[in-house]
Amino acid sequence: MRVMLRVAYDGTKYCGWQIQPNAVTVEGVLKEALAGLFGQEINIIGASRTDAGVHAMGNVAVFDVETRILPEKIAYALNARLPEDVKVVESGVVKDDFHPRHVDCVKTYEYSIWNDKFENPKERLYCHFDYGKLDFDKMNEACGYFIGEHDFTSFCAAGTQVEDKVRTIYSLDVRSEGKKIIIRVTGNGFLYNMVRIIAGTLLKVGKGDVLPCEIANIIAGRDRQLAGPTAPARGLTLCKIEYKETDL
Amino acid sequence: MRVMLRVAYDGTKYCGWQIQPNAVTVEGVLKEALAGLFGQEINIIGASRTDAGVHAMGNVAVFDVETRILPEKIAYALNARLPEDVKVVESGVVKDDFHPRHVDCVKTYEYSIWNDKFENPKERLYCHFDYGKLDFDKMNEACGYFIGEHDFTSFCAAGTQVEDKVRTIYSLDVRSEGKKIIIRVTGNGFLYNMVRIIAGTLLKVGKGDVLPCEIANIIAGRDRQLAGPTAPARGLTLCKIEYKETDL
Repeated sequence: MRVMLRVAYDGTKYCGWQIQPNAVTVEGVLKEALAGLFGQEINIIGASRTDAGVHAMGNVAVFDVETRILPEKIAYALNARLPEDVKVVESGVVKDDFHPRHVDCVKTYEYSIWNDKFENPKERLYCHFDYGKLDFDKMNEACGYFIGEHDFTSFCAAGTQVEDKVRTIYSLDVRSEGKKIIIRVTGNGFLYNMVRIIAGTLLKVGKGDVLPCEIANIIAGRDRQLAGPTAPARGLTLCKIEYKETDL
Repeated sequence: MRVMLRVAYDGTKYCGWQIQPNAVTVEGVLKEALAGLFGQEINIIGASRTDAGVHAMGNVAVFDVETRILPEKIAYALNARLPEDVKVVESGVVKDDFHPRHVDCVKTYEYSIWNDKFENPKERLYCHFDYGKLDFDKMNEACGYFIGEHDFTSFCAAGTQVEDKVRTIYSLDVRSEGKKIIIRVTGNGFLYNMVRIIAGTLLKVGKGDVLPCEIANIIAGRDRQLAGPTAPARGLTLCKIEYKETDL
């Protein structure tokens, strides 16, 4: 059977999702836990290859196994073998041909900023720190220009080997929870570093360095140099990935 | 002049506030930063000697120094010398005889619980994890019995060398923010482990093991064994300490 996992992790100590030689990765520790549980090497297909330092509340991974463990209990069995910064928050069966990167989905990310005079030690691992005064109205006005189907070349790390850079953003907004600013975005897919470049650009809008209406030109220009900087990895969390095809 | 600092820290890696031989403490790293900044050994008087693993958003420390650095700028100068898990969030001058433990104050603590089927890696350092179903109405009903002036012997670690165990709780309530449960308490002072024992007892109320009305008897009994367990340190944060005597 094909099993799907939803995986939450604190990405602080990991060199990203994808397995690599001589580096600790989330996929690597998951594979180790799976091998320990099932007594055999298990290959994983991940939905999103998050970067070093990026967090997740619900990345998705699938694998094939024959086992008598009930699918929904696999989460508990794996958690007993996983370190405290990686946890499986749901497990279940999907169709045998379900591939988490080859079917339509809706992904939701949040980018968090601690916006105060001083850094907050309790938020430092999960928020980018910026003490600048931010105009939320302008940031939200800028958000409107991102929504819809666009070629997001300007918001993709230069040199990325993807031909089709058209993506659809369904929603994008900025809210504050006390001194924490949260940029939340949903879309049908995101290019390499796209959410972090959007966050870096919205920060420039918040500080008055870029006007909200300039976003339209930045997108139309299809040039990475037009957009703002790539905001640091620690502020980014992959919140969830929703599929029509599964009940999970 | 006497300088007052408000100090925020992630207590995860520290053996508490108070300086000790062969242990890394918050007071220890602060003293080191002060010595580096002012070129001399500086003694600190702390307001609250938080335990190992307990966090703070605004613990208070005072020290005496002669310097040309503006008092409000000392925070910035110290932060450049402090590790990222300890930050000074405010600095200023207080009266020469101000002692943060010998004057009236109002302390606010929060105890956070991640209440879900699975642990959350991003909250694990700052929340106690409890998957049990909790009845918030009952927990808030129980809170009412704590409010006011009481002898809190039942909520003080056994063997504590303090004679007067009478303290006043001004407010105590339980709220949820998604799957995070936050117990917030303010009072004129707290006995050793008092907030953590209150949290451990409220968790028992939430699970139906203790009735809200039993709290009155637990307090009246003046016996540590009547109350619930001491909840783990990681869930506790000293939010703030307010003094009438200072403008800070």
